[in-house]
Amino acid sequence: MKKLVLDLDVGIDDTLAVAYALASPEVELVGITTTYGNVTTEQSTANALAVCALLGAPDVPVYPGLPCASFAEDFTVQPVSAFIHGKNGVGEVDVPASDRAPQGQGAVDFIVEAVHRWGKDLIYVPTGPLTNFDAAIAQDPSIVDEVGAVVLMGGALTVPGNVTPWSEANISQDPDAADRVFRSGIPATMIGLDVTLQTLLTYRETALWRETGTEAGKRLADITDYYIKAYETTAPHLHGCGLHDPLACAVAVDPSLVECLPINMMVDVEGPTRGRTIGNPELLNDPNKTMEVAVRVDVARFLDEFMGRITRLVSSCQ
Amino acid sequence: MKKLVLDLDVGIDDTLAVAYALASPEVELVGITTTYGNVTTEQSTANALAVCALLGAPDVPVYPGLPCASFAEDFTVQPVSAFIHGKNGVGEVDVPASDRAPQGQGAVDFIVEAVHRWGKDLIYVPTGPLTNFDAAIAQDPSIVDEVGAVVLMGGALTVPGNVTPWSEANISQDPDAADRVFRSGIPATMIGLDVTLQTLLTYRETALWRETGTEAGKRLADITDYYIKAYETTAPHLHGCGLHDPLACAVAVDPSLVECLPINMMVDVEGPTRGRTIGNPELLNDPNKTMEVAVRVDVARFLDEFMGRITRLVSSCQ
Repeated sequence: MKKLVLDLDVGIDDTLAVAYALASPEVELVGITTTYGNVTTEQSTANALAVCALLGAPDVPVYPGLPCASFAEDFTVQPVSAFIHGKNGVGEVDVPASDRAPQGQGAVDFIVEAVHRWGKDLIYVPTGPLTNFDAAIAQDPSIVDEVGAVVLMGGALTVPGNVTPWSEANISQDPDAADRVFRSGIPATMIGLDVTLQTLLTYRETALWRETGTEAGKRLADITDYYIKAYETTAPHLHGCGLHDPLACAVAVDPSLVECLPINMMVDVEGPTRGRTIGNPELLNDPNKTMEVAVRVDVARFLDEFMGRITRLVSSCQ
Repeated sequence: MKKLVLDLDVGIDDTLAVAYALASPEVELVGITTTYGNVTTEQSTANALAVCALLGAPDVPVYPGLPCASFAEDFTVQPVSAFIHGKNGVGEVDVPASDRAPQGQGAVDFIVEAVHRWGKDLIYVPTGPLTNFDAAIAQDPSIVDEVGAVVLMGGALTVPGNVTPWSEANISQDPDAADRVFRSGIPATMIGLDVTLQTLLTYRETALWRETGTEAGKRLADITDYYIKAYETTAPHLHGCGLHDPLACAVAVDPSLVECLPINMMVDVEGPTRGRTIGNPELLNDPNKTMEVAVRVDVARFLDEFMGRITRLVSSCQ
């Protein structure tokens, strides 16, 4: 069975990615590494532990990640992140804190160890800044060839960004780290706004979770409704919230959900478009393509899988 | 038989587009409309007449287009354009001037008339700024629904631009006109740098034209060699010159040469990325896609067609 490591800044859609992973019998969630972005790394770690407990998986190890971008000294949550995810990262919903401690091993060490241990069976799914993975590659470049697959949520190729017209939130947190990862030769699939803004959730669907009557169902519905409500302000034309992180997780489970273009990507790190994800022109005619960028998604099938799996999961929880 | 109208800022690769059109029995080149960009509109008109005479087609009507961008009062050729195409637009090669005058009718009026006359049989191929076509739509919006197809050379979606990291030369000349055309609902295929920088020509191929021994073959080889030489400075990693305009013409003749993504496009007209071509986020989930963006090209087949057709054409000329 494929082993999954999620790297998360938990985060509402990160929470949904955890739910999708736990609800997928095709994969085993062997660890969560945490990062900053929607919240601080510290909050993300606490949220990962709490969300796993809520969703009936109190044993998934959580490895604390780096606290800030590769070029920075510290990190402060941006007001727009707090607006979208709530100050606590889970929509101001009171999710009981876990009494479990995170692992003593840090995220970077764990990523390197996990790749060596599981090799081609390991799928690494970062849905926040790529700071941890960049540091892991720097620590041990051999993981580039050893890892099974990387399916990352981030970037925007054929549509504008969501932080600026040219940059997406995860990549913009640490464009330097993302550029190094993109150019590393890692076999990565980019699940960007191109596809995640096509996969939308509404109150109609979250109501089904609430109707299960379980604590997990009710809380997950409340958490997600906060996110849908924020989207009414930030992207009213969408009429729903983008299922960014769970789509990346779903593609890790079943790559056939998206169609991809093979492109050797890079990230602009200089100039006014810092943070933009774009094809590397110097490798345009290189027949060896190490990355794939999702440009189409089977929206109906993904939403069916998403709702079916997560509704079954929360039904089976307390 | 499909009717072709080329809209050109002649230009070396524009000259190759004329050659491709004349060498294609599947289509009839019913007119050339001229524009500014690589050269002034006046020079483009003179070049179009001269190139048609050189290539054995002295009767193709040439319609003078607008002299400058929709937002501008005048136009000056940029030094980089003169460097790439030569000051005379045809690589400083002495192509005998035609003694024929251009049409009295202007490009904009002709475009409107041509669409009404040939309707779905008309393919319009602009390989310069979209100023003429934008004006034609403003003059008679009904052409949007009546025209058979538009295959335009311009823009860059998955690779950086060639004027700035975010804008391509043709679009950057008149981003406002391009944005209006893109949003008009016109059925347009964008042949951008994504594909044209994959289709490269070298001195090896132009030597074959020279070897035909005809004036047309020798001059076309000399003109194109100037362009290849400029690319050695402007884009040395390519090891050849990009066949921008002839690829658009070839796709007009045979759309199966490229694979496209259906996307409703727009052009950034405000902010630092003015001139960038990108998907319109407000129409991302609109099932009705009016534009297609070429993202893959059958390089070998296109180059075969390109060399076979043009070599036969120049062989048959004086």
